[in-house]
Amino acid sequence: MTGTLYGIGVGPGDPELITLKALRILISCSVIAYPAPSVGQSMARTIAAPHLTGEQTEIAIAMPLDGGHGPIEAAYDQGAVEVADHLKAGRDVAALCEGDPFFYGSFMYLFGRLAGEHRVEVVPGVSSLLAGPAALGAPIVSRDDTFLVAPATLPEDSLRARLDGADAAVIIKVGRHLNKVRRVLDDLGITGKAHYIEYATMANQRIAPLAEAGSKAPYFSMVVVHKRGEAWR
Amino acid sequence: MTGTLYGIGVGPGDPELITLKALRILISCSVIAYPAPSVGQSMARTIAAPHLTGEQTEIAIAMPLDGGHGPIEAAYDQGAVEVADHLKAGRDVAALCEGDPFFYGSFMYLFGRLAGEHRVEVVPGVSSLLAGPAALGAPIVSRDDTFLVAPATLPEDSLRARLDGADAAVIIKVGRHLNKVRRVLDDLGITGKAHYIEYATMANQRIAPLAEAGSKAPYFSMVVVHKRGEAWR
Repeated sequence: MTGTLYGIGVGPGDPELITLKALRILISCSVIAYPAPSVGQSMARTIAAPHLTGEQTEIAIAMPLDGGHGPIEAAYDQGAVEVADHLKAGRDVAALCEGDPFFYGSFMYLFGRLAGEHRVEVVPGVSSLLAGPAALGAPIVSRDDTFLVAPATLPEDSLRARLDGADAAVIIKVGRHLNKVRRVLDDLGITGKAHYIEYATMANQRIAPLAEAGSKAPYFSMVVVHKRGEAWR
Repeated sequence: MTGTLYGIGVGPGDPELITLKALRILISCSVIAYPAPSVGQSMARTIAAPHLTGEQTEIAIAMPLDGGHGPIEAAYDQGAVEVADHLKAGRDVAALCEGDPFFYGSFMYLFGRLAGEHRVEVVPGVSSLLAGPAALGAPIVSRDDTFLVAPATLPEDSLRARLDGADAAVIIKVGRHLNKVRRVLDDLGITGKAHYIEYATMANQRIAPLAEAGSKAPYFSMVVVHKRGEAWR
């Protein structure tokens, strides 16, 4: 009997925003795995921390300091070998993922390496994409609206063209691209309808109209905009 | 002391995909409200049913048989009055919403009528948008991908133009628009990369390659497509 790899969406930050199913499976696994930065805590593990049994083997997949493509792939190569050893020994492994595992998640690195030869099951989670509008207290899309999710890492022209075709959008991974995002929304004349949200649902959550967001943003931040201003009107 | 209106995301269908927070608040409310079809069960109430206390006052907001805009608005006018009466009497009300309340949800009808004068709090939930890819077992977006959600109710040209600009998409509310959706994806040459999913995470879930989906679809169905075929490659 080989083990199952579970991709567990732990939700956007508030530990209470994990699902009953994710929690049940999480505590049933004897091994947990998660990406960990070279400095500081793993976000996914921090979210799951109140739920851990204290008796689980932990695989921290250490992200390289330089963050380049090659070293990240190498870190996941090794992490996948460790995970596979547990699966072959019949132990279930829960891979902890912020938000939802299949939605811009780091889980794809393990999935791509292990899904071919092992049983993999994914438990969806509340993405920050949904937690942001809930924290803001504003519906994000309704009726026949189209909705776009775009990473702020895109080139400026590309970001502008894509936003232009959608009724509402969430721009993710804002980080050092905040000024670019503001320029794009200024060009489209919708900055006044946009909000900036960082660390949605976490203790250090911060929300501001985009125009008052300042000039620095962490990686875990987003800009939310609806072209009508409010989706429900 | 007036009551609080909670918009509770109950998740996509599997009752275990509700969050700990949604469950805690749901069972703390003495009143629950939900839209109900004129024939058959309320989907949101069915999902929440295993969690209800059995002692809660229920407000079923009956959707009119003809489904026109005016009668729906009238039904919510009356539902909002009933909800407001409980709030004014100091009772908390949980409005049950499939998936996430602010994401194409019927909750906006109550929100629009009540948020101005009452305390409203939203608990995000797992949208079918995320549950579909999890059930399919395929990452939906990664890295710098753009992601589009489009209702199948859009005109054919409009749907095609919007899909053309995105790396991955979920087309929702497929229902009687299945053949239109297939024509659009055929035009774009991506039908072979698309999957059809109905009733994701429910007992009657069905998944098929779009080309084999048949010609009839319920309202709660979606088409999922990534232009590279698989997001993690």
